[in-house]
Amino acid sequence: MMPDTLRWENGCLKLLDQRLLPGEIVYRSCRTAEQVAGAINKMVVRGAPAIGISAAFGLVLAAYRVAEENPGRREFVLALNAASEKLRRSRPTAVNLHWGLQRILARLEESDSTDLLELAACLEEEACSIFEEDMVTNRRLGDLGAELIPPGASLLTHCNAGALATGGYGTALGVIRSAFKQGKVLRVYASETRPFLQGARLTSFELVREGIPSTLIIDNCAAHLMAKRKVDLVIVGADRIAANGDTANKIGTYSLAVLARHHRIPFYVAAPCSTIDRTLPDGEKIVIEERGPEEITGTGGEAVAPTGIEAYNPAFDVTPAALVSALITEKAVIRQPDQDKVNSLFL
Amino acid sequence: MMPDTLRWENGCLKLLDQRLLPGEIVYRSCRTAEQVAGAINKMVVRGAPAIGISAAFGLVLAAYRVAEENPGRREFVLALNAASEKLRRSRPTAVNLHWGLQRILARLEESDSTDLLELAACLEEEACSIFEEDMVTNRRLGDLGAELIPPGASLLTHCNAGALATGGYGTALGVIRSAFKQGKVLRVYASETRPFLQGARLTSFELVREGIPSTLIIDNCAAHLMAKRKVDLVIVGADRIAANGDTANKIGTYSLAVLARHHRIPFYVAAPCSTIDRTLPDGEKIVIEERGPEEITGTGGEAVAPTGIEAYNPAFDVTPAALVSALITEKAVIRQPDQDKVNSLFL
Repeated sequence: MMPDTLRWENGCLKLLDQRLLPGEIVYRSCRTAEQVAGAINKMVVRGAPAIGISAAFGLVLAAYRVAEENPGRREFVLALNAASEKLRRSRPTAVNLHWGLQRILARLEESDSTDLLELAACLEEEACSIFEEDMVTNRRLGDLGAELIPPGASLLTHCNAGALATGGYGTALGVIRSAFKQGKVLRVYASETRPFLQGARLTSFELVREGIPSTLIIDNCAAHLMAKRKVDLVIVGADRIAANGDTANKIGTYSLAVLARHHRIPFYVAAPCSTIDRTLPDGEKIVIEERGPEEITGTGGEAVAPTGIEAYNPAFDVTPAALVSALITEKAVIRQPDQDKVNSLFL
Repeated sequence: MMPDTLRWENGCLKLLDQRLLPGEIVYRSCRTAEQVAGAINKMVVRGAPAIGISAAFGLVLAAYRVAEENPGRREFVLALNAASEKLRRSRPTAVNLHWGLQRILARLEESDSTDLLELAACLEEEACSIFEEDMVTNRRLGDLGAELIPPGASLLTHCNAGALATGGYGTALGVIRSAFKQGKVLRVYASETRPFLQGARLTSFELVREGIPSTLIIDNCAAHLMAKRKVDLVIVGADRIAANGDTANKIGTYSLAVLARHHRIPFYVAAPCSTIDRTLPDGEKIVIEERGPEEITGTGGEAVAPTGIEAYNPAFDVTPAALVSALITEKAVIRQPDQDKVNSLFL
């Protein structure tokens, strides 16, 4: 069984500390929006859908806090907008974070109640809906995507787009779970995903727990596997998808898309519609988070590289839609995504 | 200044322990062929030319040992062949290892002396020649290769094909050194090279010591850099080159070659002619060393991946000659290498 990625218990958001996996299962209790923002920024919780849900609950925590001080409705709304801004800034690339916050703020606007505790309870209800819908979305997306997987398939996935990256079940790994249940998965290759090792620590953890035959490789090894015809398809999640289907995902994803194209292997992106950012026409404008050099120059806190070396550490890259064989969402599978096809998801 | 990769002092081979770089500069003294074989296998010394030189001295150590026991010439030759076989098996992919041993054994055959100490001294002379020639070869290769580098170039290199991988100066990094001296190098991107991190630990170390502006990246980041037009060319070393130009080098090299082709960036291989194995028609037959899974499942001795996960850890991959823009050797630069052009190097 998989441990819960997050729990909402008695007005407290409990986040599985993913930095300690697979070794330790520890939950961090967040009782303020600041604590949630800090947990997202420090990658206690990661994965676009999971941080969207977490941010929504972060805003609920802010709502209860502010309501206790019993200000006027206007002050309450201002305070929640400020809290939302803080949460929004915790990580820049995953659009689900904005989406989750936006849903809570929209719910706030819908009600003209001046009973702030009642309002906070409304927002809590909305956050719980986001959480529950995510599970349903992932299962639907998983089942739809599984139709693309041929029997006896060997799949390659990058980073972690599993239960741990979502409210549960997963996106890319949700497709793998569904296909595995249907007896179609021969083997999953998980790339370790430097520098944070989500593949080695998190995806491997999920695969082993599910009993799915799996092999860990270094990121460098993917092309070699493809040349040896050991991989039938690549499937990954997404952090933000532009209106034309260009996809930002964990650094290394674009590399896999190019390699898949060279080897004539399908490259699939699995993500809920909440990952699609229709305000951006293409991937050019997606903000790519740059993280600290110490994630590369050191390992486990110990320096591996010499003093004086610079390091460049973008956390994501952008895969042009032209390299995406299909976009798998909970509404439909879109082959060769483009602006019109992506737009049709929202009609 | 760079520390010596290896030293031959008073009948003792001193190897810089590259596993401890960049933190510590420690030399391991080898007084027997077995110690040299162990050092090669455990990657105290690595890099195709450097292990070729080390193996040659390993055989010299065996020669002096056996000579002391004063057997007949026939027994002496048999014992050296056995020692050579042990050294040959220490790592399977780099052909320079075979080449170095072969040169010592050929020298042995040339002489019909029965004075075994005299014979051993002859072999020592041959090993010293191999060592000295390697330095000359690298400088020549570096200067020839530098002609391919345009002014203001940003280069990407993988693994370590530097002074530390050779008797000194380096192959791919030798070209970079020469081009840097000519003022043509704007920046070098070094990919960290999982799992052994030769890029982060060794290439960075050399680049910082040379004062060459350089940036460390994770291996995953190369495609992103290319898409952003931050890399003008890729240059790597080689462990074994087949007769048609197919090139075995550190895992991840093939990936870079495909990515370079996709982005229309030149991909250069720099290696001495001793890395060319004319007995193999193409790369298909090159033996790819598979190393232990613990290099991937653990980092610094600590487990990062969950118990029960399998890991696949090939140390090299093969880049087809069709993806190599030019092969840079000490004799000539060969553009678009193929069997005829490679053969012409030996006429």
